[in-house]
This record gives sequence, structure tokens and C-alpha cells, in this order.
Amino acid sequence: MYNIFMNKKISEKVINRLTLYHCILQDFISKGNEYISSKQIATLLKIDDSQVRKDINFLNNSGKSRVGYYVKELKKSIETTLGFAKTKNAYIIGAGNLGMALAKYDNFISYGLNITTLFDNDKAKIGKEINNKKILDIKTLPKFTKEHGVEIAILTVPGKYAQETAEFIIKSNIKYIWNFTPTVLDVPEDIQVWNENLMGNFLQFTYNI
Amino acid sequence: MYNIFMNKKISEKVINRLTLYHCILQDFISKGNEYISSKQIATLLKIDDSQVRKDINFLNNSGKSRVGYYVKELKKSIETTLGFAKTKNAYIIGAGNLGMALAKYDNFISYGLNITTLFDNDKAKIGKEINNKKILDIKTLPKFTKEHGVEIAILTVPGKYAQETAEFIIKSNIKYIWNFTPTVLDVPEDIQVWNENLMGNFLQFTYNI
Repeated sequence: MYNIFMNKKISEKVINRLTLYHCILQDFISKGNEYISSKQIATLLKIDDSQVRKDINFLNNSGKSRVGYYVKELKKSIETTLGFAKTKNAYIIGAGNLGMALAKYDNFISYGLNITTLFDNDKAKIGKEINNKKILDIKTLPKFTKEHGVEIAILTVPGKYAQETAEFIIKSNIKYIWNFTPTVLDVPEDIQVWNENLMGNFLQFTYNI
Repeated sequence: MYNIFMNKKISEKVINRLTLYHCILQDFISKGNEYISSKQIATLLKIDDSQVRKDINFLNNSGKSRVGYYVKELKKSIETTLGFAKTKNAYIIGAGNLGMALAKYDNFISYGLNITTLFDNDKAKIGKEINNKKILDIKTLPKFTKEHGVEIAILTVPGKYAQETAEFIIKSNIKYIWNFTPTVLDVPEDIQVWNENLMGNFLQFTYNI
């Protein structure tokens, strides 16, 4: 089906809000609610009612009744717009606490992120499984990537090993790095890095405390 | 010292970038570099040179030579502007993998976030220590908060326990919740929640893949 919204550029803030609406809708569905109003969403997120309506108008969503939006239809509209259906495979590089936490985070798959495997250099961890995902020897990454063609690496090694590990990942032909380390990576032009800047997020939150 | 920049409102995007510059500066210092150019920062972050200069002009930074900014002075300017000096104490609620990972993340303290204690309801974990921080029984949270007056809770419990745990945190008189769970919390007007929306971040990153 052709979706006229696919070609619209969506801002990062809108993507962020739509994902939060999606969380709320999942919760409403699990509680057996059939309708939701923009006011209910706005109250939960402490944002403006009109903002929610504007975001929803942007979606290809038709299901609105007098008592609110149909929860299931609205959820589907968000999924279509954000392209959840197109699953992306990823590896976790670094099976420490953070890597383990992300491997256990079952919510990812419903947003189109399929973490298939973890990699580490710790012999005590290699060969084990976490949440049905194998932990493999980092040395086998180039071969594994060649066979499976995975595009995304989720980098969760300690900060001091981040740069050298990133270089190894890139040599293994991975083009996208979701960087959870506190190190800014120095990478070639054609490699895309998304810095999961936890400290930046924290400071945004606490700036006015 | 009076800082005229303290009263300026800084946008979330600027805070985010300044934190990344700070990471780069720390790295430059550890490598013994004395100067850094806006171009070097821009190249590492794949953003525009003029953007970096604009951000730095916003700071109360005076140390610029012909070969670039003085790394240490620039780092200090960022710290003053973002208020790193004002340390905030926090608890981690939920000593699972994610809670453990955050407790081990030593970088937080240099950004003014002091995680003092973890709380959990798992008897196998209570009494243990992680990175010199004790894991205490969640039941003791109200008493502990009363004695230590901590304002920030970092919520890392599984999503299905997020709402009830948040309610308990609020009853314990904590006003700020940094929410790492995939659940949108329903909280009173005077409670501030920052949703660490990992899926939203992922989708921003992968939207164009």
C-alpha cells in the first residue's frame, strides 16, 4: 500500500513523541480500553493537548469517534508512519551489564529492532546465551557479518575500548553504530554514528532543578 | 562568581551538543593536546563548523588562540555553563542489568550526578555492593529519603512494575524521576518525569536506513 506520508520528513521531536504515544496505546490496549482522547495522552506526558492533536493529524489516521481515537487504529497508524514493519537486525558489541540489559529488553522487537547476537572478548561469557541470543567471540564478527549482512552495531563496551572496537566493527563492514559509550568516535565519512548521550539527556532533565 | 550566562535559556539540542563537545575535550586532554579547533569538533560529530563556533560563542569562553581553543578552558566553560559543579544525588531503583550498568558508569559523577545507593526487592541482591554503592531493600526507601533528602530516582525496574514502583517513589517524597522503563508513568502534576525513550532514539537514528 502506498502511504503518502512515507515521503514526509518527520522531525526528531515528533518521532520521539509518537513513540511515547505508542507506549501509552500499548498500555491502554492491555487494559482493554477501546478509545483514547488527545487530552488523556497530553495529561500523561504533561504536554499540550493541541500538540497531540497536531501530531496525530500528521498521521494517516482516520479512526476518530466522538469519544476519542480508536486505540488500535491509532497504534497502527503510528507503526505505519514510523516504519516499524521494516525490521532491522543488529548486534550488541560488549556483553557487560548494559549489553545484557539491552539484550533483555523485549520491547525492541515490536519497534522493528531485532537484536540477533552479542559479541564479547571475555572467554567466561563466550558461548553463553542471554534471552535466546548467543554471545559469540568478537574475533568472529567479520565472518559473521559477511554471512548475515547485519547493518547495525550497538556499542556497549567500556569507554576506553570504544574507539578501537568501533574501528574493528567498521572493518567488519558494519555501517551504522548506535554508540552507548561516553566516547565520541572518530569514524570515516560513510559511517553513521548515533550517540546515545545519556549525560546530555540527564542535563536536559536536571538543568532547572 | 556571577556568570551572566546562567540566566540564559539553553535549548535541549545545545545542551546535548555541549555534552558531546565535553566528551571530546576530555579525550583531547587525556591525549595531551592543548588546543582544539571548531573544525576538529565538527568533523568528529559530522556537524557544521559554524554550528560549533556558534555554540562556543554562547559560552562564557575567552580562551581562543590562533591555533584553536584552549582545551582546558573550553572544558571549564562548558562545565560552568551547564552547571556540572552543582552535584545532584540520586538513587537507582531496580538493581537489574540496566541499574547495574548505570551504577558502574563512572562518568556520571564528573557531570554532577552522584548515584549514592541502589534499591531492589530481590533478597539475593539486598546487602551487596556495586561500584561502592550499596543495594538496599526497597522497603527502606521512604525512611532513607527522609534522612538523606535525595531528589532524583533513576527508574530501571521491568516495565510491568514501573507504575506501582513510581507511585511508591513518589510516596517516598522524591520529585524527579528519570524513567528508563518503556512505560509512560501516570504521576501527579508536581512530579517531573524524564522519559529515557530508547526506542524513540533508535527510530530517529534508523528512520532513513
